[in-house]
Amino acid sequence: MKAVQVVGYGEPLRLTELAEPEITGPYDVIVRIGGAGVCRTDIHILEGQWKEKSGVALPYTIGHENAGWVHAIGSAVTNVVEGDKVIVHPLVTCGLCRACRSGDDVHCSASQFPGIDTAGGYAEYLKTSARSVVKLDDSLEPADVAALADAGLTAYHAAAKAAHRLRPGHRCVVIGAGGLGHIGIQVLKALTAAELIVVDRNPEAVKLAESIGADHGVVADGGQVAAVADLTGGEGAEAVIDFVGEGGATRDGVAMLRPAGDYHVVGYGENIDVPTIDVISAEINFIGNLVGSYPDLCELMVLAAQDKVRLHTTRYPLESFQDALDDLDAGRIRGRAILVP
Amino acid sequence: MKAVQVVGYGEPLRLTELAEPEITGPYDVIVRIGGAGVCRTDIHILEGQWKEKSGVALPYTIGHENAGWVHAIGSAVTNVVEGDKVIVHPLVTCGLCRACRSGDDVHCSASQFPGIDTAGGYAEYLKTSARSVVKLDDSLEPADVAALADAGLTAYHAAAKAAHRLRPGHRCVVIGAGGLGHIGIQVLKALTAAELIVVDRNPEAVKLAESIGADHGVVADGGQVAAVADLTGGEGAEAVIDFVGEGGATRDGVAMLRPAGDYHVVGYGENIDVPTIDVISAEINFIGNLVGSYPDLCELMVLAAQDKVRLHTTRYPLESFQDALDDLDAGRIRGRAILVP
Amino acid sequence: MKAVQVVGYGEPLRLTELAEPEITGPYDVIVRIGGAGVCRTDIHILEGQWKEKSGVALPYTIGHENAGWVHAIGSAVTNVVEGDKVIVHPLVTCGLCRACRSGDDVHCSASQFPGIDTAGGYAEYLKTSARSVVKLDDSLEPADVAALADAGLTAYHAAAKAAHRLRPGHRCVVIGAGGLGHIGIQVLKALTAAELIVVDRNPEAVKLAESIGADHGVVADGGQVAAVADLTGGEGAEAVIDFVGEGGATRDGVAMLRPAGDYHVVGYGENIDVPTIDVISAEINFIGNLVGSYPDLCELMVLAAQDKVRLHTTRYPLESFQDALDDLDAGRIRGRAILVP
Amino acid sequence: MKAVQVVGYGEPLRLTELAEPEITGPYDVIVRIGGAGVCRTDIHILEGQWKEKSGVALPYTIGHENAGWVHAIGSAVTNVVEGDKVIVHPLVTCGLCRACRSGDDVHCSASQFPGIDTAGGYAEYLKTSARSVVKLDDSLEPADVAALADAGLTAYHAAAKAAHRLRPGHRCVVIGAGGLGHIGIQVLKALTAAELIVVDRNPEAVKLAESIGADHGVVADGGQVAAVADLTGGEGAEAVIDFVGEGGATRDGVAMLRPAGDYHVVGYGENIDVPTIDVISAEINFIGNLVGSYPDLCELMVLAAQDKVRLHTTRYPLESFQDALDDLDAGRIRGRAILVP
Repeated sequence: MKAVQVVGYGEPLRLTELAEPEITGPYDVIVRIGGAGVCRTDIHILEGQWKEKSGVALPYTIGHENAGWVHAIGSAVTNVVEGDKVIVHPLVTCGLCRACRSGDDVHCSASQFPGIDTAGGYAEYLKTSARSVVKLDDSLEPADVAALADAGLTAYHAAAKAAHRLRPGHRCVVIGAGGLGHIGIQVLKALTAAELIVVDRNPEAVKLAESIGADHGVVADGGQVAAVADLTGGEGAEAVIDFVGEGGATRDGVAMLRPAGDYHVVGYGENIDVPTIDVISAEINFIGNLVGSYPDLCELMVLAAQDKVRLHTTRYPLESFQDALDDLDAGRIRGRAILVP
Repeated sequence: MKAVQVVGYGEPLRLTELAEPEITGPYDVIVRIGGAGVCRTDIHILEGQWKEKSGVALPYTIGHENAGWVHAIGSAVTNVVEGDKVIVHPLVTCGLCRACRSGDDVHCSASQFPGIDTAGGYAEYLKTSARSVVKLDDSLEPADVAALADAGLTAYHAAAKAAHRLRPGHRCVVIGAGGLGHIGIQVLKALTAAELIVVDRNPEAVKLAESIGADHGVVADGGQVAAVADLTGGEGAEAVIDFVGEGGATRDGVAMLRPAGDYHVVGYGENIDVPTIDVISAEINFIGNLVGSYPDLCELMVLAAQDKVRLHTTRYPLESFQDALDDLDAGRIRGRAILVP
Repeated sequence: MKAVQVVGYGEPLRLTELAEPEITGPYDVIVRIGGAGVCRTDIHILEGQWKEKSGVALPYTIGHENAGWVHAIGSAVTNVVEGDKVIVHPLVTCGLCRACRSGDDVHCSASQFPGIDTAGGYAEYLKTSARSVVKLDDSLEPADVAALADAGLTAYHAAAKAAHRLRPGHRCVVIGAGGLGHIGIQVLKALTAAELIVVDRNPEAVKLAESIGADHGVVADGGQVAAVADLTGGEGAEAVIDFVGEGGATRDGVAMLRPAGDYHVVGYGENIDVPTIDVISAEINFIGNLVGSYPDLCELMVLAAQDKVRLHTTRYPLESFQDALDDLDAGRIRGRAILVP
Repeated sequence: MKAVQVVGYGEPLRLTELAEPEITGPYDVIVRIGGAGVCRTDIHILEGQWKEKSGVALPYTIGHENAGWVHAIGSAVTNVVEGDKVIVHPLVTCGLCRACRSGDDVHCSASQFPGIDTAGGYAEYLKTSARSVVKLDDSLEPADVAALADAGLTAYHAAAKAAHRLRPGHRCVVIGAGGLGHIGIQVLKALTAAELIVVDRNPEAVKLAESIGADHGVVADGGQVAAVADLTGGEGAEAVIDFVGEGGATRDGVAMLRPAGDYHVVGYGENIDVPTIDVISAEINFIGNLVGSYPDLCELMVLAAQDKVRLHTTRYPLESFQDALDDLDAGRIRGRAILVP
């Protein structure tokens, strides 16, 4: 089969011909890829930023946002059959550790991450697990939802966690209306009646946010903390979801928070650096957010099938992977680039 | 009546004669003081550390950990009668704002703090509110429990919040076995079956912690992070309650935390300074903790009446306030100093 | 002032002239009535059904769904001023008991219920408490929202409680699309992405439900249990909210419930009569629902101001109270009848 | 191997020689039985009460409370190795359905129940799944804990759920201090500071309950509702856990409940038959309780290893199964009978 591989850090990806993956374990599932999302993390991998962390041996196939059709299943698989349309949860988890048994598979003590530390989905076929495939509604196409498998899932996880504590009359600030923020806003709109205030440096992104449900848009031009203060009657917001996490976002975000408020950390880059006396005197919380669980992905697919969450995508043939990466790097992509084999 | 007042920052407190407080509002309650806790905050007040924050006009009477007997009540007070033995919640709250109406009176938008920003309890009588008095069980004496009104209440609040998420088999690290930690350990013991690991620099404090229920004691001599790793099978603890918050406690404490764990901030001094990538990749939470609510104080008094929470105290006559402060400052007090008018 | 009073059970209400209520307590609030909802409970009161339960002395003024403008306030009132537009929570609560202090004022151990056990709002003025008035958004008029004060608040309380456990992909059955159900559907739509299945005997009510957000409407013609089974893939629903509670609704409703599901009891009349073995083998829950709390009413007013909850009303001059009752009794009112002094 | 089988309803069990179970699936685990609990359900099975419900083909091996040592494992098993000491969760679950993926394996849509609908543990060897085995602490012996696998697990599940909402100062009534109640009391003692009131018809059982932590014992001699009223200041209890569920227990239990209280249904037999108006006016809840989940069993084993939960047992050789059943039926067993091969 065709596959796109990392052959060296600092080198371009290479299209190559590989043997198709085969069923070797009882819970294996082979997915014929219908779409693989092109993510900024892929660029970071190529730059070598994940070299130590993943410890993956080169060459290997990248691509961690995958959807397609079930091509083959192991002997113990009961939740999908050949031909099923599926989206692929980014982790392959053990199902037996304490975390997995509690429904919190993201903290599995023995997980794999195809596309990061083992073969991923820039290819015709991907090997994953019965525990990682979510059947799609008839109305959804793999190439349309592939990018929800990781970026979208992370946004859903954070937004749904925040929504669980938001009540009518509460205010939720969303920092960053890019890829994740865009999904987060739609999820919040579907799950809560709280007022949404979206902050972004890019006026276009703010405009887009308003068009999909933000109650207020704030261009982060230096006056964003004051603007949020104005919009919340000087009180601050009950929740801030920070999809940026760098460039001063956390300092601003904490200043936008009301006493007893929750600060959801999603984006990363800088440090949270805040006096403990401020944490206790305002009694605020910082909530970490990693990718969502398998049930989270099921729920996100329900919202997608209900057309409550939509993602703009641009398709590229698998062979044009370099164009997709170049366009992403140059900021020429609206929404997400998807490789289609 | 006799009262001990702040007459100037950097100057000693002064014993003086004042008019007794009088009932002026419908919910006023005058308490005849049975005991007033002497707290390190009182020393900080005298040093001027709270000058700007409280904005209190001098001279004023300090003392924010109070218990005694109801001496007089306003026309609308229905929850206590003259002669009732009570402990006094440190805040006087409005009862009408959104926070108060949600049972979260600590975040009242119009609260007063006797002993900090208005007249406190180093005196024969204290004016507070019906919303601040909790009746004591017959078995409890005001002078014995006064110090639970603020320090103990803060420890209870944090420990009870942590306990709510702790299950059998979980591990909870308590950093700091001093005044607050001492109460926190007893509260955790009463409310959870989780394993308690107590960390303190002082070997005596560690020994004391073990005698009141800590399953493991760790002397913080530089090897404390490794010791906790050993005690948790290399996994880290599900919760850390940090009663210290300075001197590197937060850096250590975060290193003791398991993925998806909760870091409870109680003590303060230094900054939390942690990379956002660590917050999201381990998906940990930082939970702020202020003083407890009125229901928290009621619950703490239940534990005290059940003899599940005990505090060692040393009594001083009100006139000997300077001895109490000197002894506290010199580290000569085991448990808490209590002024008794 | 003019007021409409119960002068005897089984006798018509009587319009009379009374002295205006006066401020006597520090937290008293006098509201000039802008609208008073005419409720089926008012008919039951007249029939004597509440005689024993309320123990009210005749004559007295009825009307327990009230909104208007603040006319006068007691000395300790800080949350409203004269002229404020307000809706009135149906209970007057003490603010000091354990329930009140926990934000659960509905279970106040010393509450009054104007219109039921003391003077209500079929009048020009109503005496209530600072703890019972919620300020209205500029966009809302007292006569438009008055009926949300009790019926709407009950529906909000149940629907919000159910919504808290509903996730995308879950199904919620609403039994009864009358007054309460109508509000409940709108609230669920605002707070959850769960699929709503509305069941009612009246095809018109089902049609209306579909027009305000029900995903599926089922006419209860004997096949309703089978219809819900079909709509839930044979599994049953994660939640049932029963606004009827009589005529076999509970038997049907339990049959519509999925294992581990929640049955919310709101309407009443018949008994829940279910084998304990069915309760444990399906591990289902029955959740009681009374009127909502003060914070619930604040939240409902937010939804009303956001135009997410609307109520159809027909206004009558206060003097035409008998017409309103007659129209209600004869089923001639769409939505709710409102008396306007 | 030796095994004890049901050969006909209404006939005695028969000891027979069978082939040992073999590994056929990747997640299979064969356990060498160290102890199998003899349960009243086993008598009901023999009487034919489960005939329709289980649909099991005769003959088959009974015994659903099992513990022992891992004898063999399938190819995909990673959580235990041969020789491990384990207790066996009563269900074999699929691991892939929505319930399993949420950590709620008890509601697995494709579970088996060894001893009920497939071969159980009155035998030398039992076939179960990797998903069903919990490793035991060194300090615990299989024959000592086997009876915790089902009866104990059910009690733990209900008690832990109740404990999660109980705060210091709350009262919890336990109805029934027999096998399950006995465990439930110990679990509540370990997990909550609430006051425990234990009600049983048998004065000996009440005495025993007091010896293991009940704060108050009430002999159910007709005055039990009044006694609980007295013990709760006329208010009723915040929670009732009903381990009986027959003979009028539910009517009594509901009368012991405070407004907004939770009624936990565990025992079964009679109907819950309560007017909906009582459910809503007191706003009480009925909470169903089935057997606990896999994480519940892990937690219970932690409490057992901490010696916080203990069970009195009497051992019988496997061959003496009839003696054990006879002794159980005749009420001659204190605690639980355990068959040891």
